[in-house]
Amino acid sequence: MPVETATDGQPTFNLQLSTLCIVGLGLMGGSLALALRAAEGLRFGVQRIIGVTRRSETLDAALEAGAIDVGTTDLAEGLRQADVIVLATPARTILRQLPEVGRSAKPGALVLDLGSTKAEICAALAGLPADIQSVGGHPMCGKEIGGFAVAEAGLYRGKTFVLCPLPHTSEAALAQARSLVDAIGAHAVVLDPVTHDRAVAAISHLPYAAAIALVNAIEAHSAPAGLPWSLAASGFRDTSRLAASDVDMMLDVLLTNREAVLGWLDAYTAQLAALRGSLAAEDESALRAQLAMAQTRRAGLTF
Amino acid sequence: MPVETATDGQPTFNLQLSTLCIVGLGLMGGSLALALRAAEGLRFGVQRIIGVTRRSETLDAALEAGAIDVGTTDLAEGLRQADVIVLATPARTILRQLPEVGRSAKPGALVLDLGSTKAEICAALAGLPADIQSVGGHPMCGKEIGGFAVAEAGLYRGKTFVLCPLPHTSEAALAQARSLVDAIGAHAVVLDPVTHDRAVAAISHLPYAAAIALVNAIEAHSAPAGLPWSLAASGFRDTSRLAASDVDMMLDVLLTNREAVLGWLDAYTAQLAALRGSLAAEDESALRAQLAMAQTRRAGLTF
Repeated sequence: MPVETATDGQPTFNLQLSTLCIVGLGLMGGSLALALRAAEGLRFGVQRIIGVTRRSETLDAALEAGAIDVGTTDLAEGLRQADVIVLATPARTILRQLPEVGRSAKPGALVLDLGSTKAEICAALAGLPADIQSVGGHPMCGKEIGGFAVAEAGLYRGKTFVLCPLPHTSEAALAQARSLVDAIGAHAVVLDPVTHDRAVAAISHLPYAAAIALVNAIEAHSAPAGLPWSLAASGFRDTSRLAASDVDMMLDVLLTNREAVLGWLDAYTAQLAALRGSLAAEDESALRAQLAMAQTRRAGLTF
Repeated sequence: MPVETATDGQPTFNLQLSTLCIVGLGLMGGSLALALRAAEGLRFGVQRIIGVTRRSETLDAALEAGAIDVGTTDLAEGLRQADVIVLATPARTILRQLPEVGRSAKPGALVLDLGSTKAEICAALAGLPADIQSVGGHPMCGKEIGGFAVAEAGLYRGKTFVLCPLPHTSEAALAQARSLVDAIGAHAVVLDPVTHDRAVAAISHLPYAAAIALVNAIEAHSAPAGLPWSLAASGFRDTSRLAASDVDMMLDVLLTNREAVLGWLDAYTAQLAALRGSLAAEDESALRAQLAMAQTRRAGLTF
């Protein structure tokens, strides 16, 4: 019986003895499954992993890779058996799946999501039945391409994993979420959902929007044919990389973090206008100050 | 005697027997010297490399690394002995050095520059004495950090190297420039200076400006302290990488390619405004079309 009673009276369980259901086996969910497998034999391995996906081909691939023990395309069936439910689908899909989680998750289950935005999702998590514990999550890692085919056990290792407990989340449930984060080699950072969304709008969603606009600006005005694309080198490659991100996932991100993204887009546009102004006026000292401020800050960041 | 007479009557020379003077031994000039050294024993090695730098410490490092045969901090002295002169300083330094090149280069010398912008420099090259041949050059490679310490023999290998012959550049001089490009493993692409400047403004200078504005927008509005910087991951790292570029070099680039950069900044701002409009209006189909256009184009590029 994996269910135990924690000091604050909330149901809890031993992660090693638990059944985990991962909904969505793309890059994030697939990598989570593989990471937990790689942790087997260590102190964190879960007993059983159920995978839920829309397409049975993905389940076949995950079973073949040994990432999951069983797979189903029936969300309710997967949810019913789980001690821990991890929602690893795009943000708006998570929002659509939560009512079913409310109906099918067993009492005492812990729900953790991996959605890229947290305010809307945490508000929806707060509407789940009181006997289900939930924590919003956002691992700060990824690739510009998705799918189980590119999932890897080491994706989370050394990365920051934001956890957003709800006002009524128990200490025991948060500790369980932390132990899952530890199990995959990430380090947990607890933030409130609004602070999280504003911060990731700056360092993730704005860079994505900047990359999209960059590619589209060149596409709209490139001539003669082939130029300037044929001259693009490492600088363009890196600056534009995020533009290749999965459109469905990023559409969800932008639409569920609209206000924060709009605010950062305005701040960004203001900086571009200031840069344009200095250059147009050939104001070398103003331009130098703008370039130097960014150079100092960026050169001081380590990744 | 390295000087020969080409079929079009212009003086020329055998690269293997020539004396090359590289002015500036930072990333680009230093890597050129190392690449030509690495090519020694192959058919392209030059006989002697003279390095000219402002600081004697750089000459010491280059001599110690075997990148140059002799070094001098006296520009005129280095220029006087050379069959081939490569100007590897920032764009506006090249413009300042060209009068001395006109006074000191020997008749029949070939001048090639590595400046990041070509229209202003090629116009200045055209003003050199008629017995000096010149070709504008721009290798499409680099790093966000500069200096001889990060120079490497393989920097140019497999990269595009733009050559901009002047209206009066002889076939023989262009062939010499091509043979130098071949020697370091790059592939030459001939473009006129204005076409070059417009294209690199799009794929290099605009991405740089975008990265600068990105860092400065976040710096201007980041709160609480530490956030959002502490959450920055690979997406932000890559999108902002160019912001760490050398300020002096990039100031020269922007100021010598002002019109083209301003034009691309306007096109970029228009795309950002379109993106902002779709998001603000929650116009999902317009937003999807914008993201998908960039995704398709970017995913189709190979580097």
